[in-house]
Formats: sequence, structure tokens, C-alpha cells
Amino acid sequence: MKSTEIWNDVESIRLNSPLVHNITNYVVMNTTANALLALGASPVMAHAAEEVGEMASIASALVINIGTLSPSWVSAMEYAMATASERGIPIVFDPVGAGATSYRTDTCRRLLSAVSPSIIRGNASEIMALVDSGAKTRGVDSSADGTSALEAAAELSGRYECAVSVSGATDLITDGTETLSIFNGHPMLPKVTGLGCTATALTGAFAAVNGNMLSAASNAMAVIGICGEIAAAKSEGPGSLQLNILDELYIIDEKTVAERLRSGE
Amino acid sequence: MKSTEIWNDVESIRLNSPLVHNITNYVVMNTTANALLALGASPVMAHAAEEVGEMASIASALVINIGTLSPSWVSAMEYAMATASERGIPIVFDPVGAGATSYRTDTCRRLLSAVSPSIIRGNASEIMALVDSGAKTRGVDSSADGTSALEAAAELSGRYECAVSVSGATDLITDGTETLSIFNGHPMLPKVTGLGCTATALTGAFAAVNGNMLSAASNAMAVIGICGEIAAAKSEGPGSLQLNILDELYIIDEKTVAERLRSGE
Amino acid sequence: MKSTEIWNDVESIRLNSPLVHNITNYVVMNTTANALLALGASPVMAHAAEEVGEMASIASALVINIGTLSPSWVSAMEYAMATASERGIPIVFDPVGAGATSYRTDTCRRLLSAVSPSIIRGNASEIMALVDSGAKTRGVDSSADGTSALEAAAELSGRYECAVSVSGATDLITDGTETLSIFNGHPMLPKVTGLGCTATALTGAFAAVNGNMLSAASNAMAVIGICGEIAAAKSEGPGSLQLNILDELYIIDEKTVAERLRSGE
Repeated sequence: MKSTEIWNDVESIRLNSPLVHNITNYVVMNTTANALLALGASPVMAHAAEEVGEMASIASALVINIGTLSPSWVSAMEYAMATASERGIPIVFDPVGAGATSYRTDTCRRLLSAVSPSIIRGNASEIMALVDSGAKTRGVDSSADGTSALEAAAELSGRYECAVSVSGATDLITDGTETLSIFNGHPMLPKVTGLGCTATALTGAFAAVNGNMLSAASNAMAVIGICGEIAAAKSEGPGSLQLNILDELYIIDEKTVAERLRSGE
Repeated sequence: MKSTEIWNDVESIRLNSPLVHNITNYVVMNTTANALLALGASPVMAHAAEEVGEMASIASALVINIGTLSPSWVSAMEYAMATASERGIPIVFDPVGAGATSYRTDTCRRLLSAVSPSIIRGNASEIMALVDSGAKTRGVDSSADGTSALEAAAELSGRYECAVSVSGATDLITDGTETLSIFNGHPMLPKVTGLGCTATALTGAFAAVNGNMLSAASNAMAVIGICGEIAAAKSEGPGSLQLNILDELYIIDEKTVAERLRSGE
Repeated sequence: MKSTEIWNDVESIRLNSPLVHNITNYVVMNTTANALLALGASPVMAHAAEEVGEMASIASALVINIGTLSPSWVSAMEYAMATASERGIPIVFDPVGAGATSYRTDTCRRLLSAVSPSIIRGNASEIMALVDSGAKTRGVDSSADGTSALEAAAELSGRYECAVSVSGATDLITDGTETLSIFNGHPMLPKVTGLGCTATALTGAFAAVNGNMLSAASNAMAVIGICGEIAAAKSEGPGSLQLNILDELYIIDEKTVAERLRSGE
């Protein structure tokens, strides 16, 4: 990964303010909207079947996050994904809590079978649960390490012809042929709710400006990792961390990205 | 505008803690509840058809915000507006994202046709979309400047016999005969999600204690503008800005309002 | 109350990260998830009838909060409570706004009649409304003092065979035979939305690791009271207070609990 390419995407997001349509969970709506705004994108949240098609039609990317799913929301997700697919805008899919209940796992599989996403982004447990229905997760936490999920990510990538982005102490992003690793981050990050969801939302912004999904997904994870580790170093706990990350997304500059990026292939 | 009159309203809110019933969007519920509490009002969020009539019956103002609308919420809005109208309590209406989808625009028109609000509060794009169905907005951001919306605001004001409050770099508030301008604010404010919605919620608190809707709407915009610019000067980014505004709403005093107010007619 | 016993619970929460299943209101989902994470528990929010049974089956405690109720959510609460009861995991119930509308009061009574909770946690007005349908609350604020609610708490405790935790300037926790008082806290705390709901969520985490419901409920109130008063002393207003509480929940240590605890019997 090159920091100059990450920075190109950030500048493009700031310049173009891509509209990112989110159908996401109640817990993180405020946080992910704020993260998208802080970085320079333009978020919109809309979930009614009556409007998701029209909203997806004016958006530059669609983010689907099943964190607090229910049937009417799932229908809207399905419809928005179909519209986004027809229009050719990127779809980023976050299978929050897949494996914790069969409703979550089955819903993910049904949605993904109907419309292939551009990027699937989740933690190791969730990625593994999408491949193997026998894998169990515990709530929305990851109970598997990233490395053991790489095989599952590659499998998913092939099945849905998409990039797969697995967050963890080391983030792993693969498109089935190439795999990138990002080592940025901080152990306090999982103590803030919805940072995975925030990574997903930001991935939508990067996918809106970068046609290479492996690159868009990796660049997003690098930026959230870098901002997260800078913010954590300033924070006494997860309360201040949550807001400091938003500040860092707003003030991040090219030099910081170049100095901080720690990645591998 | 006189700073003493703004301050009278703030003192009245702090003294009486008016109950403000909000039917609002998922993204901002926490933020707007906190803003109302910080200023001294008493927020309640309730959206079930089974209770909105009863809740509106004990409230001093009703705030309707369509930011994440769906049919069952719209029905509840309709019912709550009818109850508020019968009881004669002020209704503040925020047409979030009007113009972005026909569902939003049509819903706004239907709700407003059934019950005239006391105050409509939106950004320039939204206000223009309510007048001209040809006007298109992009998500929930404003893509029109305030001045070009003044004509639309005057038209809306006449149509629904209400005050109209248009937020922007310069806030414009009109009741069709008189127009006030407020120059307070800061360019970082649009980087925090839901500050428009927060202005709407605070407008509800001012309308609960001030029978003059033009004055209530203007005083609310002045207070959020002043608190916003003080908070922005202390903030490294939109994360800290979001919380600093809440702090400023809590600690604002008469002297600050008098010194900071920048308004015109 | 002994600070060592409070600390034992905190250590147990940090060590075991109990999964706390929340069916709660939209306003506080982010805040309560963050509070549970900050203390060391593992929150999950899930409300669809399609999965609440399965989610409650893998959780160590169930938290039910009716703050923004509607029929489909109430059905899910009923089903989750039945599952939790069958499995013998603790159920913490927060009757937010009981007394403000008959829908809230009636729903609480129906849910509590079907399945006895382990702990009922509310403010004085809410607790009184559950006993006396004539008692009226005003929105979600408490308009009654804690002492006058003690009788109601004892009555509820007997009726549902549970502990009852009443928050206020002095928190009162009773199981019908023994009553504990906690004097920690700060007058600024009610200016942050959802701190009562946060106390309820944390009570779920304590109940997950402490089989004595009177003790679990009291220990939770002591920790939130201590963290709240430390945070308030550092905060200029409710915006910074909201995040400082999360930081304090993360960094609280045994010595702080021992030095700060102010309780009585």
C-alpha cells in the first residue's frame, strides 16, 4: 500500500463530498454520519421501502449494515441493493453479528445471494460465520482472530466476486488474489461501540471515489486505523476516544498518513 | 433582534423546563435530547400511534422531524400534529431531506396541508423543495444558498400561515411581513450531523415559552449560532465541537448573548 | 454496602465480559452500549421477534427498556423476557416514562405480569406509576422524590418478587426486606439524557455476575454514582460530562471505589 494513494482518496472525498446512502443500525447512525462528515463525505440515512430506491439512485455508494435488523429493514436493504447494483455504484456490506443468531446469518446469505456486494467488511467471527454456518459468534464481538479468518475471506471473495475486509488487531483485506495487511490501530478501539460500523461507512466513502475495491477497502482501514491510534494516545478512555477519532478524521493530513502507515502484503 | 429578549426566553426555558415532545429521526435523537436538556428544557421522544396523542397532550411544544421517516412514523406525526393543533401548542416542523426523494417531499406536503405548523425550520434546499417540486436536493445537505430561499420562505409562510426559519451561513427567519437575519455561526458547524435538527428541537423549546413565532424561531437560531461559534473556537474538529456545543448551551449567560449577537433586519 | 464487594463485581465484569442483551430505546442505544463496553461488559442490541429468543439464549443478562416503545418492540420484549426467564438469566426492567401515557403504564404492567423481572430500575415517578395508576409523570423526568417512592418500591418488590432500584439524589434499592441508600452522584447528571438508562444497562452487567439482585442493583448504582460525580467535577457542562462518565467507567479502580462510596442502610 502507498500512502500517496490513500491520500489521493482522502482528497477526492473532501473535494467531491460523495453522497453515501446508509441503511444501518440504530446504535451507530449518529457516529457513522459524523465520521463520514468529518472526513468530508456526505451521509444520508434512509430506510423506508418508499424511498430507498430513489435515494440509492442519487448516491455514490450504498452501505448496508444489519446491526439492528428487522424484516421491514431487510426488505429495504434488498431493494436498495438491487437499485445500487443496476446503477453500478459500489455496495459495502457489514454482516454485524452474523453467527450470533440464525436470523442474522440467514439474512446475510439471502441478501448477498441476490446481489453481490462490492466489499464485505466485518470482524473475523462474522466473516467466518458467512462461510460456515457452524461457526458461532458471541453477540457482535469477534471471538476469532484475523488470521484464521483469512481463509474464510478468500472463500467469500470468490463466492461473491468482491473484496473482503476483515478488521482485527491486524486488518486483512483480500480480493481473492491479493491480500493486504494493516497494522495500525490501538487496543482501546474495541471499547468504543460501532467503530467497526464506522470503518464500514468510511469504506463506502472510499469506494465512491476509488474504482478498485481492494484499494478502497484497504485505504479506508488505514485511515481509520491511523486516526484511531492517534486519538487513543490522547484519550483517557473510550468516551474521549469516540470524539477524538472524529477530530482526527477531520484534521488528518498527507504527512500524518505517510508517517503512520504500517502495512504489509 | 434584542439580546434581552433572547435572554428572557432562555431564562423562561430554564425556569419552566417546558416539556418538548419530539417525533424525530434516529440519527439525532440523542443529540437533540441532550441539547434540550442542556438549555433547560425537558425532552421526551415518543412515536407510537398508541401514545403520541396523549404525550402531545401533556407537552408544551411538538417537534416533528422527518429525517428517517417511514409510514408508521408518518401516521404518528399526523396524529400528534392534530392533537397539538387542537390543544393550541406550537408545532415546529423540520422537512429534513425534502427534495431528495419524492416520498419526503410528498409526506411534508401532506402533513403540512392537514395541520398548519407554527414554524417550519429547514435549510435552503429543503425550504425551496417544499415550494417547488422541481427543486432537487442532494441527500440532507443544502445545495442552495439562504438568500435564494428567502422568496420560497415567504411563499411557505403565506401558504401555511407560519414562521419559516432557514438555516445557512446567514440564518433567515420570516413570517411573511418581517424578516430577520442572524450572522452568528461557524463554518465547522455543518460537519456535525444533526445541528440543523438540534436547531429545530431548540426552536420547539423557545416556541413553548414565547408566543411570537417569529421571535421564538429567531431567538433559537441566535442561541444555537452563538453557542456554535464559541464551541467551534474551542474545538479541534467536529467530534469535540459536538460536545462543546452542549456545554455552551448549559453555561450560556446574558452577557455572552449581548456581546455575541450579530443580527439584522 | 462494602466497597470490596462492588469491586469484586467490577473485576468479574472485566474478566468475563458478560454478554448483555438490550432491547432498549433509540435515544440511548449508543450511550448504553458504550457504557457497557467501557466497564468491560459486552453489549448486544437486538429487537426483532425473529431473533430475540436466540439472542437472549446466549446472553448472561437481559435488559428491557421501554423508552421509545411500539407494538412490535413490545412483542419482542415479551418473547425475550419469556426466554430469559426459562433460562434463568437475570432480567432488568426499566419502565421509562411510566405514568406519562397509559400506553407506557399498561405495557409495563402487562410485561411484568407475564414474567417477573429480577430487578426493576426507574426514577421515583416511574416506580410510583407502576403501583398507582393515578400517579402521573411528566414525560420521562422524575417529578417525585425518592423517599416518597420507597413505599411504592417495597410494594413492587413484593408484587413481582424482585429487587427495585430507585434513582434520585439519593438512590434507594430494596428487595422488600432490606433497603440500601447510595448518596453518590452530582446535580449535573440529570442534564445528560439517558443516564438512568445507562444505570439500567450497567445493572444488567452486575446482575450477570452477581447472583444477589439487591447487591447487584446497589453495586451498579454505586459505580455509576461514583463515576458520575468524578466526571461532573471535570466537566464544564453535560456535553463533556457524557463522555467523561464513559472514561471514568473505563479507568475506575478499587481505591477510588473505596474512597468515594457513600452509602447507608
